Amino acid sequence: MPLEEECRSLDAADPLAAVVAQFAPGEPGVLYFDANSIGAMPLGAERAMARLGDQWRRLRRRGWTDADWLEAPARLGGKLAPVVGAEPGSVIVCDSTSVNLHKLVWMGLEMNSGRNVVLSEKGTFPTDLYVAENAARARGASLRLVASPEEIEKSLKGDVALLLLSHTDYRSAYRHDLATLTRMAHDRGVLVLWDLSHSAGAVETALAAGQADFAVGCGYKYLCGGPGSPAWLYVAPRHQAAAQPAIAGWMGHAEPMAFDASYRAAPGVKRHLAGTPPVSGNALMEAALDLWADIEPRAAFEKHARLGDLLIRTVQELTPQSGLQLASPREAARRGGFVAFRHARAAQLADSLNAVGVVVSHRKPDILRFGLSPLYHRYLDVWELGVRLKGRTT
Amino acid sequence: MPLEEECRSLDAADPLAAVVAQFAPGEPGVLYFDANSIGAMPLGAERAMARLGDQWRRLRRRGWTDADWLEAPARLGGKLAPVVGAEPGSVIVCDSTSVNLHKLVWMGLEMNSGRNVVLSEKGTFPTDLYVAENAARARGASLRLVASPEEIEKSLKGDVALLLLSHTDYRSAYRHDLATLTRMAHDRGVLVLWDLSHSAGAVETALAAGQADFAVGCGYKYLCGGPGSPAWLYVAPRHQAAAQPAIAGWMGHAEPMAFDASYRAAPGVKRHLAGTPPVSGNALMEAALDLWADIEPRAAFEKHARLGDLLIRTVQELTPQSGLQLASPREAARRGGFVAFRHARAAQLADSLNAVGVVVSHRKPDILRFGLSPLYHRYLDVWELGVRLKGRTT
Repeated sequence: MPLEEECRSLDAADPLAAVVAQFAPGEPGVLYFDANSIGAMPLGAERAMARLGDQWRRLRRRGWTDADWLEAPARLGGKLAPVVGAEPGSVIVCDSTSVNLHKLVWMGLEMNSGRNVVLSEKGTFPTDLYVAENAARARGASLRLVASPEEIEKSLKGDVALLLLSHTDYRSAYRHDLATLTRMAHDRGVLVLWDLSHSAGAVETALAAGQADFAVGCGYKYLCGGPGSPAWLYVAPRHQAAAQPAIAGWMGHAEPMAFDASYRAAPGVKRHLAGTPPVSGNALMEAALDLWADIEPRAAFEKHARLGDLLIRTVQELTPQSGLQLASPREAARRGGFVAFRHARAAQLADSLNAVGVVVSHRKPDILRFGLSPLYHRYLDVWELGVRLKGRTT
Repeated sequence: MPLEEECRSLDAADPLAAVVAQFAPGEPGVLYFDANSIGAMPLGAERAMARLGDQWRRLRRRGWTDADWLEAPARLGGKLAPVVGAEPGSVIVCDSTSVNLHKLVWMGLEMNSGRNVVLSEKGTFPTDLYVAENAARARGASLRLVASPEEIEKSLKGDVALLLLSHTDYRSAYRHDLATLTRMAHDRGVLVLWDLSHSAGAVETALAAGQADFAVGCGYKYLCGGPGSPAWLYVAPRHQAAAQPAIAGWMGHAEPMAFDASYRAAPGVKRHLAGTPPVSGNALMEAALDLWADIEPRAAFEKHARLGDLLIRTVQELTPQSGLQLASPREAARRGGFVAFRHARAAQLADSLNAVGVVVSHRKPDILRFGLSPLYHRYLDVWELGVRLKGRTT
């Protein structure tokens, strides 16, 4: 079957077709492959903004209680948990990924206090490394980096307290095997903190099944929480009672509104909340998470894998002379949320695609990234991308 | 002149009357005296939400650059600085008050590392104490509390690194003399961190003139940034180069988008930014800060003092038998953003006022708080409050 026709068939049989229709249209004729930089806007987000404005205008301070603004971090965490394969009560939505990383690097070092190294990879997303190095130094520990995934195993020595990894590499989209690496680390007494920013909402992350200790992620990529979306964090139920939070703010207190003189950490993952919740960001994020009420995560991840495979085939069949070389694993199970290609003039190609209505992103020196969302991409979008790409590269 | 007539005259002469009209109406007939819990919604916030939705829908990842989403924390800080009497380049808008407190308590202890005590008052807002005690313990330091403002001076001993104070007490509205206490602390080698949450936007805080070292505050009270508003922090220019930030995230890096392998702190106050900015919260906050482009801060603070004086007179003249006893200083210069009264049945009275369309707030055991905004309250609102209060208490 020719590629275009195959795309039409796949769209016709897509179990998520009804979800695609729940997103706001972008600019007419523009194809957005920037799910990895910011996901599309659910139509529900417009309603959420209108509702928030109405609550603010009419309820004012009563919104803190009557509109459940204070309960949103845990409620949203409950909605996110099944999407990332987490246990109920193990996820909260709060702060930024960087702040959440700081909290959990700190907690990991505290829980494994006989050891003084955070191990990570050179390719880990930069903010993760900055935060980890700084938090480690503040505790008299240090950050150690390996040059490639293959070196992780032999570097899990007796001084390593915590292994910090980007689940999906932000340049190549290479996706680690979460369960295998976690087991390997546990066998050596090492805790593991996963950054799922480039994975959550696009591919399976199976935190509970993989025995992960801690995880963080942003909300604005594949989770479609929008600009200003809060981030989230995960603490495995078995660790929740173990450590004081790194930042002991009132929202992590057992009774925030009792205004007690001294701090008592809330039970469970809520103790990692710090300040007053970002109500507007939470409102938009909840509109996005509510889409998952009608989505079987496995169906979404299968669609995502198919979209990626199709994108690779489309580029190779339609533009064999394009100079685009696959930088991501060919095997879908080893790819995260996007597909990356190398190109000698990647920056110019990104600009030129942008000019013909294809929004992609570029990372130095030579990477083009095509973010794919199982929630709002149609298979025909991929075909159309190929057509436009062919026009720019031949 | 009778009180009601006096209110009409004051409204007629109010230099901020045009600003009052720039707020969205609440529920018809409801009087909102909860500026201390959440400020009213500027009409500009509705436009900001519509603009944000449009950017998200159309621009997507291009919003990070084309819509200046990444520059908002410093741009908003620049707009806030004159409102709190701060130098240009000394304020950024980011994170929550609790997270910002954590950063600056940490910085204060690092800068004064030969000392190991954070001094504060028992009446300081609880989250400030929780955060400070936790951050201090993590550094081998401790939190010491005094029972009343009068004890501060004699407790500023040689082991005190940092004095942390709520500028305005969250129950009595007692406002510290920022400049005098700061000078007293500096004379003893102590740095000072002010929490201006119950002051900023309502009363003068004069950070630069008072030689303050550090400050934080929320955005959702008198600054009218709305539910989900980010908080802010201030670092005096003389201290900005001194310390590494407590949380070293990419937005505080000298070149966040260079994706450097190692961290280099940005010059100035920006190094205290951590993660991706809360774009939606910033958009609403900016609509509120833009109101100040047409406001002379001194005129706003004078109106606020007059509103408070008038509220006290109104309660005393209209409801002498109400059982309400002034809990705030009578002198406006010693009051923060609200006026507090004690009442034997404060909780019931708050409910009963709410039932007749007067939104106030209650703090245990016996405090009623009336938040006053110089930006959107009319003097006649205070008269009308007196009338309704009389109906409930006689």
